[in-house]
Amino acid sequence: MNIFVDGRARNCRTVTFDAGRNAVQLIDQRLLPHRFQIVITADFRATARAIGQMIVRGAGAMGATAAYGLAQGARAFRGKDPAKFSARVETVYQTIEAARPTAVDPVNAMNAVLRAMRAGTTVEEQQALALAAAEEFANDDVRHCAAIGRHGEKLIRPGANILTHCNAGWLAFVDIGSATAPLYAAQKAGKKFHVYCDETRPRCQGATLTAWELAGQNISHQVISDSAAGHLMQRGEIDLVIVGSDRVLGRTGDVANKIGTYTVAVMARRHRIPFYVAIPLSTLDWNLRTGRAIPIEERDEAEVLGVWGAGRGRSGRSYLRIANPSSGARNPGFDVTPPDLITGIITPEGIFQPGALWKNRRRLGMSDPSPGPFPNKR
Amino acid sequence: MNIFVDGRARNCRTVTFDAGRNAVQLIDQRLLPHRFQIVITADFRATARAIGQMIVRGAGAMGATAAYGLAQGARAFRGKDPAKFSARVETVYQTIEAARPTAVDPVNAMNAVLRAMRAGTTVEEQQALALAAAEEFANDDVRHCAAIGRHGEKLIRPGANILTHCNAGWLAFVDIGSATAPLYAAQKAGKKFHVYCDETRPRCQGATLTAWELAGQNISHQVISDSAAGHLMQRGEIDLVIVGSDRVLGRTGDVANKIGTYTVAVMARRHRIPFYVAIPLSTLDWNLRTGRAIPIEERDEAEVLGVWGAGRGRSGRSYLRIANPSSGARNPGFDVTPPDLITGIITPEGIFQPGALWKNRRRLGMSDPSPGPFPNKR
Repeated sequence: MNIFVDGRARNCRTVTFDAGRNAVQLIDQRLLPHRFQIVITADFRATARAIGQMIVRGAGAMGATAAYGLAQGARAFRGKDPAKFSARVETVYQTIEAARPTAVDPVNAMNAVLRAMRAGTTVEEQQALALAAAEEFANDDVRHCAAIGRHGEKLIRPGANILTHCNAGWLAFVDIGSATAPLYAAQKAGKKFHVYCDETRPRCQGATLTAWELAGQNISHQVISDSAAGHLMQRGEIDLVIVGSDRVLGRTGDVANKIGTYTVAVMARRHRIPFYVAIPLSTLDWNLRTGRAIPIEERDEAEVLGVWGAGRGRSGRSYLRIANPSSGARNPGFDVTPPDLITGIITPEGIFQPGALWKNRRRLGMSDPSPGPFPNKR
Repeated sequence: MNIFVDGRARNCRTVTFDAGRNAVQLIDQRLLPHRFQIVITADFRATARAIGQMIVRGAGAMGATAAYGLAQGARAFRGKDPAKFSARVETVYQTIEAARPTAVDPVNAMNAVLRAMRAGTTVEEQQALALAAAEEFANDDVRHCAAIGRHGEKLIRPGANILTHCNAGWLAFVDIGSATAPLYAAQKAGKKFHVYCDETRPRCQGATLTAWELAGQNISHQVISDSAAGHLMQRGEIDLVIVGSDRVLGRTGDVANKIGTYTVAVMARRHRIPFYVAIPLSTLDWNLRTGRAIPIEERDEAEVLGVWGAGRGRSGRSYLRIANPSSGARNPGFDVTPPDLITGIITPEGIFQPGALWKNRRRLGMSDPSPGPFPNKR
C-alpha cells in the first residue's frame, strides 16, 4: 500500500526479499507511526531476531518473513553435500521458529517452503525452490487479502461510518490486510466512507498503526477512545464494524482477538450494527472445541500503567508513566467473542456465518494435522 | 481521607479554610498522582482562579471552594457600610461564578452562603455568618458522602471484586467521595474486597486519581484498560459496579457520566452484574425530561491523540503524543446510561431504583427553582 516518506507517496509491501543481496527487507513496525524505517536483515539469524524483536508483527507478515528467512539461510549455504545442506536448513528452521515460540504462522510458512524444496535433488535446485516457495507464500498472502477485500467491500454502503479495533491492516500481512481489505477495496470502487479507529489500549495499535495506514491511503478517519465507541453507536454514528482475529474456531465460530473486541461486539449487538471478522484461512483453528479453551495471554502490566508514544533519539519512541506510581495492573491481551454476536466471517472464500464454518471446512482449507518436518527434534 | 507524604500517612480534606489567614487550602489535583502539593489562595480572586484552572475539580469540592471563596471575599472587606459591603459581595460572587461558567455547584454553594448571611444586620455579623455557612456547606458535603457510604456498603460482600470508572472519589468532594464512599465504609467494617479501576481514557482519572486514592487507603486494587472490563466480567471476575455521575435525571433515571460508563453498564447487564450509581442529592436534575436532552461536551482531540503522565519540573506532568501525527480524533467527554441498565441509585437518603426517583422527589430534595440572588445582573 502507499506510504508517505518525506511527503512523497510510494508503494510498499511490509516484507520483501532482495535476491541479489540475499536479504530480507522489513518495515520497522516498532517505530511507526512516528518514524518510517526499513530494516534489512543480511542473514537468517538477523531475520530471526527481527521476528523476535517484533520489528515485524502480524500473522501474514511474520509468515512471509519466516519463509524468506528460511530461503535466505538455505541460499547462503556454500557446497554441494545434500546432508550438510539439510542440517543447515534444519538449523535455520529451528532458529526462526524459536524467535516467537507461540506463533504458528512462521512454522506453517516454513513448512510450505520445506515441502516445495523436496521437489529438488541438488542443493542448487533446492535453494532455487526455497526462494520460489517463499515468494509464492508472500504473493498468496497478498492474493488472499485481496479476495477478503472483494467479498467485504460489498458490505460497505456509500457514506457508511465504520468502526475497527486494533490493527489487522496491511502492516500485519504482506500487503492489503484483513480487516482493512474491504476499506481499501471500497475506496478503489470509488465509495466515500469514514472510519473510526479504536485507539486500542494498552498498546494503541489503532491510534498508531491503523491510523497511519488509513492516512497513507487518504481514507477519512478519526481516532476514538475505546470507550467512546458505545456512545457513538448509541447516537447512530456507526453503521458497520470490521475487525481481524488471532484465532477463529472452525468448530464453534468463537473469535479470539485483541482485548476489547468482545465489548465492541456486545455494543454492536445492542444497537443492531453488523459485526464482521475478516481473516485469511490460516487463522482458522479446527482443533479447539470451545472458546473457553483459547489461552488468554496476560501481558506486562507496564503496558497498562503507561504508554509508548513519540520520542526523540534513534528509537523515536518514548514511554510515559500514567498511573499512580504505587498501583499495579491487570493486562489480559486478548478476549473471546462468542459466535452469537458475529454477523459474519469474511474469508478469501467468501463470507460465512460463524456457525457455517464447520460444514464448509473442506472449502475453508481444513486438512488433517500433519507432523512437522523434524518430528524427532520438536 | 489518608494521604501519604514522604512516606507518612496524614488525614486530609480536599478543601479547607484557614480562618486566621483568611485563606483557602486546596490539594492541587492537576499534579496528582505524580506530585502532592497544597495550594493556598490568599484572596477571593486567587480562589476563583484555582477553580478556573482546575486545581480543584469535582462537584462537592468545587462547591465548597466557592462557598469558602465567597466567605473569604466578604471577610476581607474593611468597613461598616452595608451597601458597600453588599456591592463587594456581589463582585466576589460574580468573579467566582465566572471561573467555571457551566458548573452549577459553585453557584448553588454560594447561594447557600448568601441565604445564611441575610440573618445578619451588621457587616461583622454577616461576615461571621458567611464563614459559618461555608463551613456548614463543607461539613454537609462530608456528611452526605458518609451517608452514601453507609447505604452502599451493604452491597459489598466480603471477597467481592468491584469495578469503578473514572474518579468519583474524595478528591471530587470535600472528603470520602460518592462512588468510593461504599468502599471506604466497607473497609471500615472490616470487609476484604478488590477494586478494578478502569483507567478511563482519555484523561485517565481512574489510573491516576482513583488508584492514588485507593493506594492511600491501602485498599487492594488494580488498574485495567477500559476495554478489559468486559473480558473480566465474561470470566466471572467482577461482582459489582459502582460509578459516580455528573447528572442524574430525577424524572427518568438517565445517568450522565464520564465517557465509557454506558458501555460498562451494557456489559454489566449482559453478565447480570449489579450496576450502581452513587450521588449526592445535588446531582439530581429535576428539569430535563429525556436523557437525549443532556448536552454532551466534545472535548479537545489532543486528549485522545496523546496522554498526560508523570513529568519532570515544577508541573510534574508531561504530555506524550501517541497517535499517528497526521490523524485527528473525536472526543465526546460524557455519555448517557438509560435507567433500564441501572440497578440502583445510591443517595444519602438511601438506594432508589432509577424509576422511583420522581415519586420520592420531595425526600430527595426537589424544590421549585428559585431565582438567583442577583436576578437583574445575571
